[in-house]
Amino acid sequence: MSQLTASPTAHPAERILLGPGPSPVPHRVLRALSAPTLGHLDPQYLAIMDETCAMLREVFRTKNALTFPVSGTGMAGMECTATNLTEPGDEVIVCVNGVFGLRMTDVFERCGAVVHRIDAPWGEVFSFEQITAALEQFPKSKIVAIVQAETSTGAHQPIEGLADIVHARGALLLVDAVTSLGGHDLRVDEWGIDAIYSGTQKCLSCPPGLSPVSFSERALARMDARKTKPQSWYLDVSMLRKYYTGGGGGGRVYHHTAPINMTYALREALTIVLEEGLQARIDRHTAMHQRLRQGLTELGLSYIPSRSLHSLNCIRIPDGANDAGVRSRLLNEWGIEIGAGLGVMAGKAWRIGLMGHGSSARNVDLVLSALRTALK
Amino acid sequence: MSQLTASPTAHPAERILLGPGPSPVPHRVLRALSAPTLGHLDPQYLAIMDETCAMLREVFRTKNALTFPVSGTGMAGMECTATNLTEPGDEVIVCVNGVFGLRMTDVFERCGAVVHRIDAPWGEVFSFEQITAALEQFPKSKIVAIVQAETSTGAHQPIEGLADIVHARGALLLVDAVTSLGGHDLRVDEWGIDAIYSGTQKCLSCPPGLSPVSFSERALARMDARKTKPQSWYLDVSMLRKYYTGGGGGGRVYHHTAPINMTYALREALTIVLEEGLQARIDRHTAMHQRLRQGLTELGLSYIPSRSLHSLNCIRIPDGANDAGVRSRLLNEWGIEIGAGLGVMAGKAWRIGLMGHGSSARNVDLVLSALRTALK
Repeated sequence: MSQLTASPTAHPAERILLGPGPSPVPHRVLRALSAPTLGHLDPQYLAIMDETCAMLREVFRTKNALTFPVSGTGMAGMECTATNLTEPGDEVIVCVNGVFGLRMTDVFERCGAVVHRIDAPWGEVFSFEQITAALEQFPKSKIVAIVQAETSTGAHQPIEGLADIVHARGALLLVDAVTSLGGHDLRVDEWGIDAIYSGTQKCLSCPPGLSPVSFSERALARMDARKTKPQSWYLDVSMLRKYYTGGGGGGRVYHHTAPINMTYALREALTIVLEEGLQARIDRHTAMHQRLRQGLTELGLSYIPSRSLHSLNCIRIPDGANDAGVRSRLLNEWGIEIGAGLGVMAGKAWRIGLMGHGSSARNVDLVLSALRTALK
Repeated sequence: MSQLTASPTAHPAERILLGPGPSPVPHRVLRALSAPTLGHLDPQYLAIMDETCAMLREVFRTKNALTFPVSGTGMAGMECTATNLTEPGDEVIVCVNGVFGLRMTDVFERCGAVVHRIDAPWGEVFSFEQITAALEQFPKSKIVAIVQAETSTGAHQPIEGLADIVHARGALLLVDAVTSLGGHDLRVDEWGIDAIYSGTQKCLSCPPGLSPVSFSERALARMDARKTKPQSWYLDVSMLRKYYTGGGGGGRVYHHTAPINMTYALREALTIVLEEGLQARIDRHTAMHQRLRQGLTELGLSYIPSRSLHSLNCIRIPDGANDAGVRSRLLNEWGIEIGAGLGVMAGKAWRIGLMGHGSSARNVDLVLSALRTALK
């Protein structure tokens, strides 16, 4: 196997990750990742997990007891919230304005839900009137599922105030916050969000591999009243909560072997978020987005979404530019990764992420400089 | 947050992991884990993934194109194989002689399968006659699911020859190899196994977080003939194969963000396996098991399974010994983790794992010495 150990792939390059995620991981987090592996029932590991969940609550701005990292990437979080909150035949409203809303329809359908899909143009967001109209048209809906940060288009969906509309009709509010947690204003309790999932590899600047989720008391009551088991054993919250929180009776119970070292990394990444201060971090994301936007405008580049995320900038590929050629040049000459367009945006958009550790003046100025050269 | 950063949990202890997993992780693997994070579509990362899958094929002893690490722990691998190979109403025979066989019945039932459960006493294994009888009793069964290495009892189930019986009745053979891959004889192609899953944190000595799986051409044909989508989007092999192998048409397609750094670790762990040589590694597991068994016998301790795994030694707690007290002492005085009994074995068994990097003369002699003292 000497050709494998001698391979250049043994030494991953130091990229500047300015795509749709993963984002650049601070050295402190990489170092935490490589700490000695503990057992998943070791009291020390359980203390680390408790600290991690406590910090996740701060970053989600919630007191929800049921807040923990699912042992999978962001899509596992989506599936976890959907499978636990849905029983076959349940009606669900899913808001689709990009790839991730579209995926939600697929995930809910596989859960046996009757999906009422409402659409907004890709790059646009939903008005609360449109969601209200959907709830009136489909009054039996038990969930409204919506994406705060649509990673495929860069659109930033307002969430504040939506729960009042959703709860008034007896439904739960489920939010995708994969590309917003830790970089955008997000208030789970104040905004009345019932279930939410995110990823570690975006604004938290931890490697991918875990999906932080949180469930409200209202969501918990819905799960406790289930007549059927969730179809996923791996993602079954009734069992996961016993391991992560000791909740549900019977104390702490083994479920599966949690990804130990990834938990160390997440714990360190969250420590960094709280050391900086959540609000200061969100403000930094805003400032860096504005700095990039000004530079892109000077280069004659324009945004696709009318209301852009600060963590992800989705811009039109200018006429005459070579999509793959420019991205390859950025990667090969400067070691910068930016994202291609996804779904209907393929070939039409570039996605420049400024997430977490990556949202810095030096990265903004470098990517602008590189784009200026590559687009000449 | 200073109380968090200053907490002792910031520095995980250097345990000697001799429980049912995770096993001790070599420094080389921890170092690989902390390499810079690449994007999941970066050509360099895709090369690392290709190398990882190629090495997994060597360790599984298979040429199956569809061999890759599922982005979750071992139970995600179980769910992946079950959900992709089962459609609602399918009949399945599940062999139960411990916790993990029992879990398979639950996972298959959640997939909508009609589960025919057959039982062997915990600690015992199944005879092929018993499985043949079950196939005759339930001739419509599409799958026989069995655990090679029952982590709850330490029983080592023979697999060689079983596929002939299963295939003769038109069924597929699904095997749980979580605690055997890389430490026990296992020949996916030669033995005719159709679907198999494992974990990284056992005999491969990588941290937990990925579940290597492999599917035969026969299993692939079954999946291609599905009339319904698998209920899990996250684990849907028809999409996963496009990302991991470029198979299924359309070339390599993004599915979810793979756990990048965990892939580095797995790649390094597999490199170590192949540097040692798979057969030499298996022989080492045999020799260390024999060394431990002899020492335990001298201490008057006896094995629960009649046919013990080499990677996991499940022994009876002797009369008068304090289960939790002895385990605590091992942990606190020597930093050694051994496992408690699981399921019906709780309070009756200890589980001493000698897996991968942990299967060494120094660990065997140390745990024997510590047990001798703690049992006085």
